Amino acid sequence: MYNFVFENPTKIIFGRDSAPRIGAETAGFGKKALLVYGRRSIRQNNLYQIVLDSLADAGLEIHLHGGVQPNPGLTQVRAGIETVRNHNIEVVVAVGGGSVIDSAKAIAAGALVNHDVWQFFKGKKGIKNALPITCIPTIAGSGSEANSGMVLTNETTRQKIGIGNKLLLPKVAILDPALTFSVPPAYTAYGAADTIAHLLEFYFNREESFAPLQDHYSEGLILTTMESCMAAITEPGNYQARAALLWAGTLALNGISASGLGRVGFPLHMIEHAINGIFATAHGAGLAALLPGWLKWCVINNPGRVARLGQGLFKIKEGDETAIARQTALQLTAWLHEIGAPTRLADLTIGPEQIPAIAENSAMQAKLWKLREYPPKVIEDLLFQCI
Amino acid sequence: MYNFVFENPTKIIFGRDSAPRIGAETAGFGKKALLVYGRRSIRQNNLYQIVLDSLADAGLEIHLHGGVQPNPGLTQVRAGIETVRNHNIEVVVAVGGGSVIDSAKAIAAGALVNHDVWQFFKGKKGIKNALPITCIPTIAGSGSEANSGMVLTNETTRQKIGIGNKLLLPKVAILDPALTFSVPPAYTAYGAADTIAHLLEFYFNREESFAPLQDHYSEGLILTTMESCMAAITEPGNYQARAALLWAGTLALNGISASGLGRVGFPLHMIEHAINGIFATAHGAGLAALLPGWLKWCVINNPGRVARLGQGLFKIKEGDETAIARQTALQLTAWLHEIGAPTRLADLTIGPEQIPAIAENSAMQAKLWKLREYPPKVIEDLLFQCI
Repeated sequence: MYNFVFENPTKIIFGRDSAPRIGAETAGFGKKALLVYGRRSIRQNNLYQIVLDSLADAGLEIHLHGGVQPNPGLTQVRAGIETVRNHNIEVVVAVGGGSVIDSAKAIAAGALVNHDVWQFFKGKKGIKNALPITCIPTIAGSGSEANSGMVLTNETTRQKIGIGNKLLLPKVAILDPALTFSVPPAYTAYGAADTIAHLLEFYFNREESFAPLQDHYSEGLILTTMESCMAAITEPGNYQARAALLWAGTLALNGISASGLGRVGFPLHMIEHAINGIFATAHGAGLAALLPGWLKWCVINNPGRVARLGQGLFKIKEGDETAIARQTALQLTAWLHEIGAPTRLADLTIGPEQIPAIAENSAMQAKLWKLREYPPKVIEDLLFQCI
Repeated sequence: MYNFVFENPTKIIFGRDSAPRIGAETAGFGKKALLVYGRRSIRQNNLYQIVLDSLADAGLEIHLHGGVQPNPGLTQVRAGIETVRNHNIEVVVAVGGGSVIDSAKAIAAGALVNHDVWQFFKGKKGIKNALPITCIPTIAGSGSEANSGMVLTNETTRQKIGIGNKLLLPKVAILDPALTFSVPPAYTAYGAADTIAHLLEFYFNREESFAPLQDHYSEGLILTTMESCMAAITEPGNYQARAALLWAGTLALNGISASGLGRVGFPLHMIEHAINGIFATAHGAGLAALLPGWLKWCVINNPGRVARLGQGLFKIKEGDETAIARQTALQLTAWLHEIGAPTRLADLTIGPEQIPAIAENSAMQAKLWKLREYPPKVIEDLLFQCI
């Protein structure tokens, strides 16, 4: 295990009917709130009205910032920052998926500086301060409700970039599994793929099994996600399945899974961000489409780790290391098929002719994340596995 | 999953040579510090001098409260509270095992009230405030470095009582696995038994497997502890094994393992506390001595959960539920033997004639923890399994 610092003070309020607590939990951080939300999920389950009532009952002055789009864009964030400045807003409330929460984070940090918010994403400026954030995630998988990361797309340069800072950790996250009953089957699958991708990025990002604790931790969350996803798709109102997916999504990316692993890369997300910079695919769908090809790539380049995963997840014992690794990749791919997720780029109507553009697009993120082992040529090779 | 609130802001600084950071991490909480430590561990590894130097370098005025005994006593805590009051101490620094950290917590809470600190433990008064605490644990297993619990023994009434309050969560915990190289084999085993007991208390404290996430989480930490304990005993300077034991001990009792399980009892700890109220045994040794008998008890009363554990831990597939449960109990007991831990009360020279006194002693804790399903008669039955 490498040295690490783990600090995650986000207060998690988990359970049915917990959304009405948002007002009281937010009021401690300010009197004027910006409510950030998207286009769909807040309109389900009467959530919009519940949140407005709760904030109003707690005496908050509410300013609206709705219609946040998937793969959220810089333009909308800049508008949110303007609203915060014009009204001296003190706290940001995010109700929605990962895009909504990430937008809230960008607004919370961007509102307190004189320069443009994109300077943070270009690595030109560091985040020194941010408004407090409270949130209610409405889909499992992004992990943004209890972590320090945010991802934003610059529509002009076609760059989707992710950065992190502990000041972006939400103060409070209210997780009600029942709010995710209305997530359609496809997006339930995408969320599960997102959770598993987060864990596998760390799992495969090392050659040795020197951290058995982290291996067991990640395997447990992957198994939980696999077991619960099909149940939630078959029976959208299955509370226990939704609860397991939601809490697993949080625990997969709240800092524990990466603690002790040293410098961890995020190559799959880097490539998916490049795809999102060019194509309007759902983030989780992009990850699912890349996963089987990436697993094949890992079977070749890191068979020991893939085999260890298969032994942990599926108890595969037959065959040598490579045989077990191959079987592991096949079983994970079969599961993606089963939940109805895309399993190759063709499923997203992305053809081999697009590979150079995707590889090129990922260069800036690779530079920012210091992933020197992933120059465009390597990414092209990897993408070729994903055709 | 039941509704829950999870909030654990303790900052974990994990890694080799991290102890000298204690001064800088503590200085933010006050200028006058009480240094709480025990009788042995702080004298190893030059730790005493490192801590003193670091605190002094950070400009802290240091007051000493050393010699804390295992199963820490009320008398020493009262003396610590006096020291805090006499010198207007603002922050408490604990360097040692669970007893030392628990004493620091009791001092931190007790110093800010006019009534006697034992009123908290009797349930007569609630904790409304506490001095900030920073700590360096020197043994894996108690979990106290990053949780809200504390256990104290009243030497007069022979009662050892545990209570919890989120105000007791340390602000910072510095975990250096190398500091545990000097933990003797027996205490390494006791610490591992403590970690596993914490997890199993929650694991068996329900009849259904409605929380697969928590099952996988706990199984992963139990496996980690089992795999690493023998390595640490055989090779005391095995950093990776010590690191796994230390971080597993923290993650076993930092709130995640119990989140979502509803009201969780702690019956094994309750009984062990009763033993400690009467006999001067090490806490982890007492737990180890009780574990095999408790497992037998669980095989009878909750075979489905024990079988699920065995399937998760040992991949046992042969036989019906009871057969798998029995095999699970046998394998866990065999592991306790292997690491040199006691496996029955006789190993602690506690005979059957002591059972009524232990059962009687546990009554107050049972009342405080509202464990109505454990009247003295049931505890006697259970203890008889542990002979």
